[in-house]
Amino acid sequence: MSAIVQKCAENLEKVRANKPLVHNITNFVVMNFTANVLLATGASPVMAHAANEVEEMVGLAGSLVLNIGTLTDSWVDAMIKAGQKAALLKTPVVLDPVGAGATRLRTSSAKKILDKTSVQIIRGNSSEILALAGKDNTTRGVDAANSIDEAADIAQNLARELKTTLAITGAVDFITDGARTVKVANGHHMMPLVTGTGCSATAVIGAFAAVDNNMVTAAASGLAFLGLAGEMAAKKADGPGSFMIHFLDALYLLSANDMLQGARITE
Amino acid sequence: MSAIVQKCAENLEKVRANKPLVHNITNFVVMNFTANVLLATGASPVMAHAANEVEEMVGLAGSLVLNIGTLTDSWVDAMIKAGQKAALLKTPVVLDPVGAGATRLRTSSAKKILDKTSVQIIRGNSSEILALAGKDNTTRGVDAANSIDEAADIAQNLARELKTTLAITGAVDFITDGARTVKVANGHHMMPLVTGTGCSATAVIGAFAAVDNNMVTAAASGLAFLGLAGEMAAKKADGPGSFMIHFLDALYLLSANDMLQGARITE
Amino acid sequence: MSAIVQKCAENLEKVRANKPLVHNITNFVVMNFTANVLLATGASPVMAHAANEVEEMVGLAGSLVLNIGTLTDSWVDAMIKAGQKAALLKTPVVLDPVGAGATRLRTSSAKKILDKTSVQIIRGNSSEILALAGKDNTTRGVDAANSIDEAADIAQNLARELKTTLAITGAVDFITDGARTVKVANGHHMMPLVTGTGCSATAVIGAFAAVDNNMVTAAASGLAFLGLAGEMAAKKADGPGSFMIHFLDALYLLSANDMLQGARITE
Repeated sequence: MSAIVQKCAENLEKVRANKPLVHNITNFVVMNFTANVLLATGASPVMAHAANEVEEMVGLAGSLVLNIGTLTDSWVDAMIKAGQKAALLKTPVVLDPVGAGATRLRTSSAKKILDKTSVQIIRGNSSEILALAGKDNTTRGVDAANSIDEAADIAQNLARELKTTLAITGAVDFITDGARTVKVANGHHMMPLVTGTGCSATAVIGAFAAVDNNMVTAAASGLAFLGLAGEMAAKKADGPGSFMIHFLDALYLLSANDMLQGARITE
Repeated sequence: MSAIVQKCAENLEKVRANKPLVHNITNFVVMNFTANVLLATGASPVMAHAANEVEEMVGLAGSLVLNIGTLTDSWVDAMIKAGQKAALLKTPVVLDPVGAGATRLRTSSAKKILDKTSVQIIRGNSSEILALAGKDNTTRGVDAANSIDEAADIAQNLARELKTTLAITGAVDFITDGARTVKVANGHHMMPLVTGTGCSATAVIGAFAAVDNNMVTAAASGLAFLGLAGEMAAKKADGPGSFMIHFLDALYLLSANDMLQGARITE
Repeated sequence: MSAIVQKCAENLEKVRANKPLVHNITNFVVMNFTANVLLATGASPVMAHAANEVEEMVGLAGSLVLNIGTLTDSWVDAMIKAGQKAALLKTPVVLDPVGAGATRLRTSSAKKILDKTSVQIIRGNSSEILALAGKDNTTRGVDAANSIDEAADIAQNLARELKTTLAITGAVDFITDGARTVKVANGHHMMPLVTGTGCSATAVIGAFAAVDNNMVTAAASGLAFLGLAGEMAAKKADGPGSFMIHFLDALYLLSANDMLQGARITE
């Protein structure tokens, strides 16, 4: 049993014991699912986006999760306000730059949040992370690498450029702070057929970041946990509807021991 | 069979027969689930929050449900506008003060709604109701009482102070208008693991308030009905995902006769 | 096998092959379910409503779906902006006038969208379509006709007046551009017990309109597909909760061959 798998399993027990309050400023599409994922995991979700409330709410939270999936300028302003308060309180902030690269508003809003707040972890797919780093379509991302090692190098360089921990999700997830790189190979191809699995991964990373001050292992814990739940759910699912339901059940049922047995995390 | 259980069972038949339109101004997290809960119950949900629409919409409705779960000032303004129109029309208004006590915005917004409109029922947990009554953390609420009788006394006093009917939910629910106090002991510990079960309880109380002009029995009917559905769902559920689905099925399948057999309502 | 059933089955294969991006500006209640329905169908959903983003987003999309279920003036402005860009790009626009006729805001907003943009298909129930055509309650709609043929005539006349393709849904759906009228008799009475089945029908029509430039057959394909999935789901469901889940599974599992066997589409 590797030390990191051990730590991730312990992190799950900590989430269940501490039930951290995760403050989400997230998109309309996934709010309900994200809250249910956090509850099934053992955390306590709260959604609050009013500019005159977010600072007080983040003061109660173990972590802050920012997600630009259905952004408008006023929501981005609230995210920045909450993020700045989180920085003062040393509360970890996790950013999901949904659709960065697809429109200028998304790319520039995500960059603005990065500039004006103190984001500890960005969770996104390969193209979103490239867009944040200012790369165009011709740049090879982790999903276009010729080998796992090359992908890990690409991820590591991007983390150095963006000066934060990255959790780049795909068939294999790459988590790196620019120095250390961890790979998570859990997951199932049915997960992207349920809206919000990516967004809820970001939220679950937020739950783990509230109990583990190492952002690399926090993110790896969250992604291994979610991926493993996806694998368990897929065994029982007939399609994406039943998959979604079994996935929520699996998050609830999955034990630290299941993590020890099933997490495929390597450094 | 007690008279109140009989009345609550009849109320369920009335909801199914009349299919009251319940106008919700509620939070983003639970809108979908609330609509599905109301449909499964037999009521007709509508969600509408535009300031230039709410008065006309509430004019079509059998009840108005206000929920501050993801509030902003403009939404609270719309709630007040709708609530004032409801008062003119003598349409019952049910308030869910989600998170009152957690932030000043929530506490003050809930109080403002109470001051400026005519709320017939407040459905909340013990700490939310204490916050509305201006009590601090040192005050003992229903959940900290030494006995059911003491809890009922506390609830009754709070209802007198707040001058409305309270439905304080917990392991046992206390429903009181300050004079009469009813206890509902239905429910299951898995219910809080699905986001929106509390909010949908408020909405279902709204459906019953549209067919029963006694606010105490309306609220007791809704809470016994929901709690009983939770008990039925728990028998089949593996975790919170399947619980949520069986719960919606149970709301649909639960008959007036099931209420007569299973409702645990006492005065 | 009729030619139109054949074409609808081929359309399903095209959706699965092309995975069209469907840009939705829709209501808060159904965003999650709509996204899951589109994913299960094989399309790619995106939700984006910011006025400073919608034109760029619609430029990436195969179709635009506008839904006024929880409208406010600023959202309607964004819908118009997106719709005008779609017209420039010749991207099909599908409108769901949720609640037209219920409030003046809904009726006037839907009419404004029709006036200022170029809507290719309106999907609504009988009373919503009558309201858009400026008819009052005394006018007989398709659901009050004495025969299928009379209903088809009513639909056809309304399409001529509104100068667009109509998909009027009910026990039998009528799809007509004013010249050609197609009837779809698939569906199940449990569908309206899940919130958003109507709205997701509109979104799925959007997916088909992205791969078939004949708006009548695009709409008929979407409605037959959804109705058939509803029939499959109903065979396994105990109530509306399990129906919703089996419905998502059925959308995913339903093949072009199932369409050939089960679609009840007639001209």
